[in-house]
Amino acid sequence: MSAAERGDGQYAYEGLDRVIHERARLGVLTSLVAHPKGLVFGDLRRLCQLTDGNLSRHLQVLLEAGLVEVVKSFEHNRPQTVCKITSEGRARYLDYLAVLEQVVRDAAAAMQSDPAAPPFTGLAPA
Amino acid sequence: MSAAERGDGQYAYEGLDRVIHERARLGVLTSLVAHPKGLVFGDLRRLCQLTDGNLSRHLQVLLEAGLVEVVKSFEHNRPQTVCKITSEGRARYLDYLAVLEQVVRDAAAAMQSDPAAPPFTGLAPA
Repeated sequence: MSAAERGDGQYAYEGLDRVIHERARLGVLTSLVAHPKGLVFGDLRRLCQLTDGNLSRHLQVLLEAGLVEVVKSFEHNRPQTVCKITSEGRARYLDYLAVLEQVVRDAAAAMQSDPAAPPFTGLAPA
Repeated sequence: MSAAERGDGQYAYEGLDRVIHERARLGVLTSLVAHPKGLVFGDLRRLCQLTDGNLSRHLQVLLEAGLVEVVKSFEHNRPQTVCKITSEGRARYLDYLAVLEQVVRDAAAAMQSDPAAPPFTGLAPA
């Protein structure tokens, strides 16, 4: 079967949500999914290895897209910022994850058709 | 264990190669890995659902990064462009895939800690 016969757009990956498919934002959302009660700004910054400015900028994008909420308060007389993923954020993250899993499956299949590729163990345990 | 104690940069995903971590280029490289003999420009465009201009632009980035080679020739008196992944391209694609697999594993672990998340079947068969 030729490439064209196999179907257009097989590797188009249109579901790779551009808001999420950015390294820093992907890390931020994964961190927030792992901490459903929310994370303070400093912990999020350290988990994702981002500067204050970069994290603020990416949080703004996620906020405007409705994927996170940011709660500013005072704790022990000091300002505190807590970031949480929203239910829409969780849903879109799951959708994005499904596309990533498809990429990994396509890659495993592709590697098996490539005699020049080193052995690819696919989804091996970490 | 607090987020900070768990270790800095747990979700930094620094291995997400910026050349590859772009939707169109990810599709192009996956297509080329699946077709190790190479793909003519038209087939690559259809597989990835890109315009001529977008595909040319992304191929230029991949070419300059040493991840693909582009062979222009004449077939039946018509110009033909064949794109192939290079061995460096294949190696960096594998490295990138390893990080994607880590993201998928982190997400599966994260979802299991989130009582608000719908059931996540992780790496379920397609």
